[in-house]
Amino acid sequence: MLYLVGLGLADETDITVKGLEVVKRAERVYLEAYTSILHVGKEKLESFYGRPVIVADREMVESSSDEILEGADKADIAFLVVGDPFGATTHTDLVLRAQELSIPVKSIPNASILNAIGATGLQLYNFGQTVSMVFFTENWKPASFYDRIRENASIGLHTLMLLDIKVKEQSLENMARGRKVYEPPRYMTVMQCAQQMLEIEDEKKEQVYAQDSLAIGCARVGADDQQFACGTLKELCDVDLGPPLHSLVLLGKRAHELEKDYIKKFAVNEETFEQSWKKYHDRNQ
Amino acid sequence: MLYLVGLGLADETDITVKGLEVVKRAERVYLEAYTSILHVGKEKLESFYGRPVIVADREMVESSSDEILEGADKADIAFLVVGDPFGATTHTDLVLRAQELSIPVKSIPNASILNAIGATGLQLYNFGQTVSMVFFTENWKPASFYDRIRENASIGLHTLMLLDIKVKEQSLENMARGRKVYEPPRYMTVMQCAQQMLEIEDEKKEQVYAQDSLAIGCARVGADDQQFACGTLKELCDVDLGPPLHSLVLLGKRAHELEKDYIKKFAVNEETFEQSWKKYHDRNQ
Repeated sequence: MLYLVGLGLADETDITVKGLEVVKRAERVYLEAYTSILHVGKEKLESFYGRPVIVADREMVESSSDEILEGADKADIAFLVVGDPFGATTHTDLVLRAQELSIPVKSIPNASILNAIGATGLQLYNFGQTVSMVFFTENWKPASFYDRIRENASIGLHTLMLLDIKVKEQSLENMARGRKVYEPPRYMTVMQCAQQMLEIEDEKKEQVYAQDSLAIGCARVGADDQQFACGTLKELCDVDLGPPLHSLVLLGKRAHELEKDYIKKFAVNEETFEQSWKKYHDRNQ
Repeated sequence: MLYLVGLGLADETDITVKGLEVVKRAERVYLEAYTSILHVGKEKLESFYGRPVIVADREMVESSSDEILEGADKADIAFLVVGDPFGATTHTDLVLRAQELSIPVKSIPNASILNAIGATGLQLYNFGQTVSMVFFTENWKPASFYDRIRENASIGLHTLMLLDIKVKEQSLENMARGRKVYEPPRYMTVMQCAQQMLEIEDEKKEQVYAQDSLAIGCARVGADDQQFACGTLKELCDVDLGPPLHSLVLLGKRAHELEKDYIKKFAVNEETFEQSWKKYHDRNQ
């Protein structure tokens, strides 16, 4: 059996009791380490589980899935995923390959950012589709996120934006030369996300949002030191929320007064918060 | 400290290691038992935790929150919530009351239906706002869900519908006479949800969906015996998916071929599935 085990969001104790039982009895344990991260390293997990953990990078999962699945028809293999196995990234290729080999697959659910974002005080019922934001390069500034936000905004809903992470990436030069030298990991910050959002609005000028649109910058959601900053996109361009992971919620116009009462305590600047709320969200205006 | 501890979706082992530590050391442990249910009873939880659990019904949480919070300024109180503390129902009143009393509050996240629904094979990125469906009575058929579905459908997104549960409800007569006699619990089924959806479409005739619209009936998501049935709304009116909890996903037109490959194995009837897919979801048509 291939088990996809959700690890939750923060540390080694966020695994479920059910998940931990699987990890303890599995023949091999892989840790998917390229689409998200916990706040503790592999060593901490190994000492908590009392057994070795094999780090699975993108290359291994995408090119050597048969290595991971080796023997899973007879024994249990655990594939650990930060958050929930059905969260932002579903390991469809691995699951489909297992099915081709007649290996049964089972998921052990856990918390994901999609519901933990409720810690902002925003109602999960008021969120539209989740959107990804990737690192822009000089020549590549994918803006499909802009259309997705427009769709959510058209029906008044909040948008959760999940921010890019780059782990074990090669530079173009190293890739061209076939050198397996990797760049240091990079995690997009709320500042970078807000800047990229304004860059695209500035280019397209379709008023999907503006410099004074309200958003909540979120850092390390689900951990003891989680942090929120509510401000205009312009303000969030300068708010340092510390270590990864970050995400951002752009408020929909249907935001409710009860949500306001909760999020205003995260306001970067109470005055600009009230101004933008009045301009975009106050139903009495 | 007041801890809101997510229990996950199925049984006693779905609690996280972190959550279990809190439960073991807390002064008192309450189980919120009116917005969702696990597949195991209070006794199973008590024997797993090795301690008594107090069932908190709606009346207690809404009218006697100070009883729950008693002493939480000095000791730890655990308030257990099926799924994730920020899932469908947020216990805002309890949290706000704790804050008034200067009692710190902390949440221990867990899986919720909002991400576990990924087990259908549908991409979580393609879901719009989540919608609730309540039991209709002869004179009360709230149809706001219809407008929410229209909004999601207008941008091609799936809609997850969470189905009503009625636990410890009084009949109007017993309520009027002040008799604390309660009706047996009721959990809405996929059949009832599909019927109510078609009843409203039949009344409004705004073609937000139709009898042959594709949906997935879901039962006991996250448990070993979880079950899915993909069919037209008309077909789902007659599909018995067994014990609760049930939920339903109405497919958005932007559904992808990869999603089709996954969900077709749940088809009630392959022929009608293909017909409806071709009619509503095939991008080449």
